[in-house]
Amino acid sequence: MKAKLGLLKEEDMSLATDLYQLTMMACYIKDKKNNTATFDMFVRKLPETRNYLVAAGLEQVVAFLQNTRFNEDDIMYLRSQGFFDEEFLDYLKDWKFSGDVYAVPEGTVVFNNEPLLRITAPRAEAQLVESYILSMINYQTAVASKASRIVEAAEGKPIIDFALRRCHGPGAAHLEARAAYIGGCAGTSNVAAGKEFGIPVKGTMAHALVMSYNDETESFKAFTDTFKNTKLPLVLLIDTYDTLEGAKNAVKIAKELEKEGKKLAGVRLDSGDLTELSKKVRQIFDDAGLNYVNVFASNDLNEYKIQQMLKDGAQINAFGVGTEMGVSKDAPALSGVYKLAEDIDEKGNLIPKIKLSEGKITYPGKKQIYRITENGKFSKDILALESEVIEGEPLLIKIMDKGKMTYELPSLEQIRNRTLEQVGKLPSEYKSLQNTNYNVEISNGLQKLTNKLIEDYKRGKK
Amino acid sequence: MKAKLGLLKEEDMSLATDLYQLTMMACYIKDKKNNTATFDMFVRKLPETRNYLVAAGLEQVVAFLQNTRFNEDDIMYLRSQGFFDEEFLDYLKDWKFSGDVYAVPEGTVVFNNEPLLRITAPRAEAQLVESYILSMINYQTAVASKASRIVEAAEGKPIIDFALRRCHGPGAAHLEARAAYIGGCAGTSNVAAGKEFGIPVKGTMAHALVMSYNDETESFKAFTDTFKNTKLPLVLLIDTYDTLEGAKNAVKIAKELEKEGKKLAGVRLDSGDLTELSKKVRQIFDDAGLNYVNVFASNDLNEYKIQQMLKDGAQINAFGVGTEMGVSKDAPALSGVYKLAEDIDEKGNLIPKIKLSEGKITYPGKKQIYRITENGKFSKDILALESEVIEGEPLLIKIMDKGKMTYELPSLEQIRNRTLEQVGKLPSEYKSLQNTNYNVEISNGLQKLTNKLIEDYKRGKK
Repeated sequence: MKAKLGLLKEEDMSLATDLYQLTMMACYIKDKKNNTATFDMFVRKLPETRNYLVAAGLEQVVAFLQNTRFNEDDIMYLRSQGFFDEEFLDYLKDWKFSGDVYAVPEGTVVFNNEPLLRITAPRAEAQLVESYILSMINYQTAVASKASRIVEAAEGKPIIDFALRRCHGPGAAHLEARAAYIGGCAGTSNVAAGKEFGIPVKGTMAHALVMSYNDETESFKAFTDTFKNTKLPLVLLIDTYDTLEGAKNAVKIAKELEKEGKKLAGVRLDSGDLTELSKKVRQIFDDAGLNYVNVFASNDLNEYKIQQMLKDGAQINAFGVGTEMGVSKDAPALSGVYKLAEDIDEKGNLIPKIKLSEGKITYPGKKQIYRITENGKFSKDILALESEVIEGEPLLIKIMDKGKMTYELPSLEQIRNRTLEQVGKLPSEYKSLQNTNYNVEISNGLQKLTNKLIEDYKRGKK
Repeated sequence: MKAKLGLLKEEDMSLATDLYQLTMMACYIKDKKNNTATFDMFVRKLPETRNYLVAAGLEQVVAFLQNTRFNEDDIMYLRSQGFFDEEFLDYLKDWKFSGDVYAVPEGTVVFNNEPLLRITAPRAEAQLVESYILSMINYQTAVASKASRIVEAAEGKPIIDFALRRCHGPGAAHLEARAAYIGGCAGTSNVAAGKEFGIPVKGTMAHALVMSYNDETESFKAFTDTFKNTKLPLVLLIDTYDTLEGAKNAVKIAKELEKEGKKLAGVRLDSGDLTELSKKVRQIFDDAGLNYVNVFASNDLNEYKIQQMLKDGAQINAFGVGTEMGVSKDAPALSGVYKLAEDIDEKGNLIPKIKLSEGKITYPGKKQIYRITENGKFSKDILALESEVIEGEPLLIKIMDKGKMTYELPSLEQIRNRTLEQVGKLPSEYKSLQNTNYNVEISNGLQKLTNKLIEDYKRGKK
């Protein structure tokens, strides 16, 4: 048997959906019910440890909507299941997304119940794309949001993404590096992501290098000899055997480099009491007149640990963060959903729709988010019907019209800047690590419509 | 700007590594230190809520090792960073994995400190592949292990993987469906994964379908009309408005289907008190003489909820499980590591290696896991040096020799069967949801060697 790589390929994107999307589509096509419907993608409730989300993943959704098709191979596979008739398979052969998309730009701060994305499209098209979109936006938004908390906790000290090895496969890691950068990280260790997205790539050395030489100093020397004439910042990992001994060995290396007019950029600590060790290591370098040598720290870090370390006076200049950010460990799944908000009847009338399942009620109709800013800070959002006149900045922007782009995609750098600007406008209580709920008001118009639909349903049942 | 899909492509696999792997490699190549080294991939400590792991991901690692290369584009990107000299970039142009691989077969139950994989290769090769391998095995093993707990809790009732939308992107979902099937799931909703890996694809309908028709009965009728002459098992989602009303509407549909000699396969509950609702729904169907109609349940399920529901007498025939399994929610990152275990010196002597960083000590040397079975049940494992003679079944098998396959990859079905067989041999306490530690003994030979290396290091320091 030939070993399978297990990487999802572009030509298989169309099938990266739940089977029920295809069966529902077949039902709509057969019933000539492929008229226009509007779906919202939103997060009902923020995780307890998130006061805000940073929207991310839109660019990949756009690429998916532009490019997904069913090829012969897909059709053959579907036929082989024995679920679908030829009329439906023919429909799939010509499948192309032709809908309208509204979304909040990536890097926008968003809250519970606010649509990150709204799709108005022939029902069967809107249905197919649900699963892929949710998976893409749920994950990138989860990581960008977690990264933003970590970046804020570090008070301006750079955070480097080290998550690849703990991400949910190399495909997840690819997206993770992008989302972490959107959240405000300064770079990634993931070279493939660096290449694809233009993220600065960063790295030091691992214990394996130190252990591959006869002693620590020999390994440090070998490493700095290899890179001292290149652009790589020279960073030595000093905790393989004994951190303080390692620091002293690094001092020797730094002094030798100085003789050649070169500089040791820093050292990395990866175990033990990072706060205490960082102070002692700082002292060792300062005593040697090497105050330019930076101290980096890593080892299962998160926003709480970083905040505490800085409070305790840790002498750390930058942090490497992996696992906790890469899997958004305290909230590893964002529960974004994609729900029917508006339908159209036989006569062409728009019909707002509501879901009433226990604990899962949705807001009906085409909606817009309006953000109110006071004295340069966000004070509240109003979730309203698009048809209402509300003051404030509308956050949902038209991205695609009948399947064609109407929006200039920003660069990753611009997205990252938007995050930093948006988070900068959040009042400090939402940036703290305490749980605080931002005020998302429901407009009068939206609340009235919601109440009316609930009443209508109750009356209908009697 | 052209929108990027963000899917990791086969041609970029070689760069799906941490930058420090490449810098360390450059150091080894420059220093002519590219001699043979042995690395173990293992999990130091199982998550608190895991009594055992189910190894998964080896096939994808094999495919990666067989196929990863550096193309011109990769080399150009690396050159543009200004970190590497041409000698190293030339080395990469010819890069090909030429090492030996030992691994436990997928579907094997494993425990803390046991190598899931061991690589003996030129140091620079073994180093490059670390990050990709860790990400692949950490994730698939995390999901297979979580899935196995859920499958066990369901006491033989099928578990269907519904996780796509909450996975860490569609690439993660692709691997997730495979790993969940290895863990014992009966199928997946993910069509792309079904196609690629041959996993049975399953699905029902969503609330959007019900809401797209004038009323629930009309939607049920439309759906069953579409599929009653196909192989799709007919399952109706009955909780969109009111579950018990929904059940009654489903009874009407089932009766109409009976007139045509067709059968309603089941109904799905997706909200509310699933245990109580399932009993009432079961009663409604039984009262109507429809005891063949199955009740499916979904809604943020996990092994604890399923165990409790069955204990409380829930009348549920199968479960759909998404988020909790797809992100292994209670333990979303498996902390698998990849550590130097043995080196070779200039004279060709094998040198066992140990890492001594605080709380991160490793076991040195080339190792084997021996499993002891008593009365058909696993009683303990012994982690030993490969050179020791130990009774018990050796779990590490040779997979590749000098880069060539020496192992016949099993089918996914065979892997899944192995999991079920292996878990069947676990004493019941390890399959319970209480935390219980399996006995992984360290052999005398391995313990002596470990102690000796620690002593040697301490002496060296004095």
